[in-house]
Amino acid sequence: MSTEFLKVARAAREAAAELAPLPRAPKDRALRAVADSLVARAAEIVEANAADVEQARERGTSEAMIDRLRLDEARVGVIAEAVRQVADLPDPVGEVIRGSTLPNGLELRQVSVPLGVIGIIYEGRPNVTVDAAALCLKSGNAVLLRGSSSAYSSNTALVRIMQEALQETEVPAGAVQLVPGLTRDSVKELMRARGLVDVLIPRGGASLINSVVEESTVPVIETGVGNCHVYVDADADPDLAVQILVNAKAQRPSVCNAAETFLVHADIAETFVPRALAALGEAGVTVHGDERIGRFGEVVPVTEDDFYAEYLSLDIAAAVVGSLEEAVAHIRRYGSGHTDAIVTRSQRAARRFVSMVDSAAVAVNASTRFTDGGEFGFGAEIGISTQKLHARGPMGLPELTSTKWIYTGEGHLRTSEGTVIARSAD
Amino acid sequence: MSTEFLKVARAAREAAAELAPLPRAPKDRALRAVADSLVARAAEIVEANAADVEQARERGTSEAMIDRLRLDEARVGVIAEAVRQVADLPDPVGEVIRGSTLPNGLELRQVSVPLGVIGIIYEGRPNVTVDAAALCLKSGNAVLLRGSSSAYSSNTALVRIMQEALQETEVPAGAVQLVPGLTRDSVKELMRARGLVDVLIPRGGASLINSVVEESTVPVIETGVGNCHVYVDADADPDLAVQILVNAKAQRPSVCNAAETFLVHADIAETFVPRALAALGEAGVTVHGDERIGRFGEVVPVTEDDFYAEYLSLDIAAAVVGSLEEAVAHIRRYGSGHTDAIVTRSQRAARRFVSMVDSAAVAVNASTRFTDGGEFGFGAEIGISTQKLHARGPMGLPELTSTKWIYTGEGHLRTSEGTVIARSAD
Repeated sequence: MSTEFLKVARAAREAAAELAPLPRAPKDRALRAVADSLVARAAEIVEANAADVEQARERGTSEAMIDRLRLDEARVGVIAEAVRQVADLPDPVGEVIRGSTLPNGLELRQVSVPLGVIGIIYEGRPNVTVDAAALCLKSGNAVLLRGSSSAYSSNTALVRIMQEALQETEVPAGAVQLVPGLTRDSVKELMRARGLVDVLIPRGGASLINSVVEESTVPVIETGVGNCHVYVDADADPDLAVQILVNAKAQRPSVCNAAETFLVHADIAETFVPRALAALGEAGVTVHGDERIGRFGEVVPVTEDDFYAEYLSLDIAAAVVGSLEEAVAHIRRYGSGHTDAIVTRSQRAARRFVSMVDSAAVAVNASTRFTDGGEFGFGAEIGISTQKLHARGPMGLPELTSTKWIYTGEGHLRTSEGTVIARSAD
Repeated sequence: MSTEFLKVARAAREAAAELAPLPRAPKDRALRAVADSLVARAAEIVEANAADVEQARERGTSEAMIDRLRLDEARVGVIAEAVRQVADLPDPVGEVIRGSTLPNGLELRQVSVPLGVIGIIYEGRPNVTVDAAALCLKSGNAVLLRGSSSAYSSNTALVRIMQEALQETEVPAGAVQLVPGLTRDSVKELMRARGLVDVLIPRGGASLINSVVEESTVPVIETGVGNCHVYVDADADPDLAVQILVNAKAQRPSVCNAAETFLVHADIAETFVPRALAALGEAGVTVHGDERIGRFGEVVPVTEDDFYAEYLSLDIAAAVVGSLEEAVAHIRRYGSGHTDAIVTRSQRAARRFVSMVDSAAVAVNASTRFTDGGEFGFGAEIGISTQKLHARGPMGLPELTSTKWIYTGEGHLRTSEGTVIARSAD
């Protein structure tokens, strides 16, 4: 590992040890100091950002992408406000999750504690740099940030300003670190830093996430790949189903909880599909349908790749199925385990679908778009986990914690005959 | 991947889908049928085991190891009884962990669900084959078992009998699978079976666990490596401290929650160390001490390797420290994050130690030997996790589950202006 990387990783590790036992008040004060400093030094941030924007222009980046990258004073203000909102959230650390006095008198408690050092690999806008840092600090964790090289100048300025703000607080400034370097090597170092980094959270497209899962020896929480389905059951109200489908697909097609496939029970296809095709067409959606969908209107012939696809665009795959079981089998085969919805009036069908679909979230008579930390009332979200270990679905502050068992006795010894209490000779 | 491996892995995956939605009653009936069958076919098991024992003898295996491998009818009875005890435990699946009606009327629930397919790699006695299978079935998971090649004949018989017993029940027989083959290749296949296997739990020594963590693309729960410490604070009752130390080290030195190092505050060294050396010597323990420990009696000079060692024998490393902070720094550096104990009369010292030591369990005035699923009242234990993701410390049935979010509406759509309820035209 490069000495630059080891330096920041060790600094984060030391800071994590100092930060973990801090109670809520000093952490909140530090977050508010960070927010104030971001606002006070907005001009400096905008200037650093201008260099990234200029470079992106030279590279011929699209205007849409440049707009995602660009920071102005107003956007810096929004970023700072989000930090204040994190300060207002309850502290996820120190919660007694389980606890009892054991039959032998040992007092046992399981308490939430920070994870330690969290590595975040992300492609997105520079606001992720501050959002992720705020969530990690609030949950008592140090953070190693590895953002997009296209935002390196912005991220460098943001991290420097956060560190300098923390210097005036009880939170160690070393708790927020930017991984040095612009090349893929720095991502590799982060992935091999087992023992220095406790968990890696990649945020981005499927290829980034897959490469991290393949190569990392640090435990990974996978996030955000969403091949979501809407299944319209034989018993569905067709009008409700059309509106849920159009909302799930078209309200914001670029996000992971947007629908990418719809499945229709054969018994309702004749009623539902023509209306669905009309409404989707009106919303500008291209339908990639199987032959039985194609009977009711113009569609692009669907391929198996379409069923696997996370389009993130105004495209949707579609198929007619013979039964709820067939729909579930399709979802299990092609889905990404993010969110799958059923539209039905049947209590029994809803119950069966919910129990058989193996996804982070299952929606009944609701758009898939509600799978979101904000909608669930978490106040903040670090990502949406599509894996099964540790966290599944939207991850808020509690998902950035682990636990510790604490047991207190008065000289409790374990013997083959049971517990014995040691007695002092005094 | 070999076709043999794919065959069992896919069979487990299919069985998992069928098993996951089953409620408690059919799972318990199946476990009791397995227990009955093990007892009824004990002679068959003992015969298969005799082949393993004979082979072990030919290889010159020690009598102690052969005793761990050997099964007789009485031991089979004990194994079957453990299966019945698992049947008596509460079902960890289907618990509503969080739930509320959101402001927009969506009914949101987070429910515990099985993980899916669990791979277990273990070195131990053949009883682990049945114990692990019972815990996985009870928690609604299918299991791929990869035991020691030295117990292959026993394990084959045990799995065949379990599968045949399941055939008469509602639990699919494919839910219990032995990974075919005796070579390291079959372990490799298990580690690379991402998408087929949801989690791997290696149970065994540090080298097995490290190699699985390094090579696996399937998420891993690390278990069982314990370099546990007893720290004797300046304020400790020396008699209590001696008894806790001897119990932690010598009551059962071969287990992961046995102590491997003790640290003594300099202020109490003169009172404590001579008594500790005498009591440890009486218990047959060799002390590997630093120079300051050596002032009070005969010790083997300690090396840095000793501080890292998980002896699992009647050996213990020892050092004098200048402060509680120095003890914590030592534990953070050399410890394995399993269990560390403080002996003290000071409330403040206990509080500081508990908050600063970053381990799965922290004991106050109690032996480290209590970190155990049985002692914690879990009824059963699949291992002790020394990592921070998903599960930390003793793992019972709830640690073999994940969660699923379920939300139910009546046509809930997400718009930029908030939730809108779709209305039917009817």
